[in-house]
Amino acid sequence: MALQVIPQIANLRARLAQEDSIAFVPTMGNLHAGHIHLVELARQRAECVVASIFVNPLQFGANEDLANYPRTLAEDCEKLQAAGADIVFTPSVEEMYPTEQTMRITPPPIANELCGAARPGHFDGVATVVMKLFSIVQPQIAVFGKKDFQQLFIIRELVRQFNLPIEIVAGETQREHSGLALSSRNGYLNDGQKLEAQRLYRTLKLIVDNVQKGNRDYAAIEAQSSQYLTQLGWIVDYVSIRSAATLMPASPDDRDLVALAAARQGSTRLIDNIEFSV
Amino acid sequence: MALQVIPQIANLRARLAQEDSIAFVPTMGNLHAGHIHLVELARQRAECVVASIFVNPLQFGANEDLANYPRTLAEDCEKLQAAGADIVFTPSVEEMYPTEQTMRITPPPIANELCGAARPGHFDGVATVVMKLFSIVQPQIAVFGKKDFQQLFIIRELVRQFNLPIEIVAGETQREHSGLALSSRNGYLNDGQKLEAQRLYRTLKLIVDNVQKGNRDYAAIEAQSSQYLTQLGWIVDYVSIRSAATLMPASPDDRDLVALAAARQGSTRLIDNIEFSV
Repeated sequence: MALQVIPQIANLRARLAQEDSIAFVPTMGNLHAGHIHLVELARQRAECVVASIFVNPLQFGANEDLANYPRTLAEDCEKLQAAGADIVFTPSVEEMYPTEQTMRITPPPIANELCGAARPGHFDGVATVVMKLFSIVQPQIAVFGKKDFQQLFIIRELVRQFNLPIEIVAGETQREHSGLALSSRNGYLNDGQKLEAQRLYRTLKLIVDNVQKGNRDYAAIEAQSSQYLTQLGWIVDYVSIRSAATLMPASPDDRDLVALAAARQGSTRLIDNIEFSV
Repeated sequence: MALQVIPQIANLRARLAQEDSIAFVPTMGNLHAGHIHLVELARQRAECVVASIFVNPLQFGANEDLANYPRTLAEDCEKLQAAGADIVFTPSVEEMYPTEQTMRITPPPIANELCGAARPGHFDGVATVVMKLFSIVQPQIAVFGKKDFQQLFIIRELVRQFNLPIEIVAGETQREHSGLALSSRNGYLNDGQKLEAQRLYRTLKLIVDNVQKGNRDYAAIEAQSSQYLTQLGWIVDYVSIRSAATLMPASPDDRDLVALAAARQGSTRLIDNIEFSV
């Protein structure tokens, strides 16, 4: 079956009215193998797979890359069709926000830490657009990637705290052979930066090894890793070892952990994380 | 059919899973003819009528009447059954808020005016619990009373701004023969206060007459009405003439208006409003 491209909310609702097994993959487009993995997970779980492509202005800060964010609709549709998606919802900004969005979802306090500290208002914008997309698509299942670990955590909280009748499925981060996590923002990197970018994941792996060998001085590990990246020319937003269950700073008693980092190569902000147990 | 009383979210979801024509009437209980009118409107519009009774702590201020708010479940169930409701959802506070509700709906700017000015956080609490109730019940139709005119406005905004697939139906304010709007809080009034309480509606009617006779000096009318009530012992929160469409202060060009007032008899806060056209 051909992929249906539907830009209007009313048309999407009409198309989906009779579907009762919908898996939804919200994206900002410029799809790579990470997104396609999420579509494949969706395909396994529901009769009707809906993706969305919407570069959401609400989640970009004033000095961020909203205007330059890569928009590649034709290629994206090809990839979605090949992956077995049934429908792609491609609303305009005016379709999603016909008037100013004065009502918002306030995210939980964790939204002010990690990526939220460097991107104030980001998770407010994410939670708000996801709530709108959920209302429009009304999926039974929604699939998000683990690369945006804090986003995934906040979406799970959104579902829990607002009693949404939706199961959240998490897709593993897809990586290049070098270990670099796939990201639309990798396209901003020049050759030298791309080579250096591998180090973000390698640094996280070193942290995991270090902790698994028994080092529990998380503050020292974080500081050393951050200093290491800074010396190599990165501008580091954070390197942090957290409880995977709560995203709060890990205590020595926590068994299920996640090491997260966000750092810039030039003006390109990259994030990555590894979940692990001790 | 007997009314089903369901306190658990999971049980309610299971019961409603096969229903595709649900009209929902959220209440805080202590039901009077105003609520019953809403249930009757719901009965006309859907195959399955669900009411809820939940005194929502999130929408009460620290010095408000949460602890004393009248709770009359047995009588409420009798009335709901007589009015033809199928189900009443009666969650505990723990069922609705098993952990702190850190994610909230921020209401639109109008929520800081009128009742919101005297009750900071009130509409945040209303919008948040209504979003949760909508997610739990998943109605096609939800019915709210016009007596809480500002609340109705904000719920309509909630539906519009979050693309909720729900039609909002508004029920007319029900009144005693004296004109006093039915309200659970009328039960707090002593005989003298109840007699005086009629004057709130009568004052609004005088305002409507005044405007319909051609007086467009809304600020003066508001000030005079407020002064009049104050002289008679009321503590006035506001008397305001607004656009019915936007709830913004009425301009002389607005044709569809609403006169609203909130004032206290002793510690009992009463509100009322009249929609009218010029």
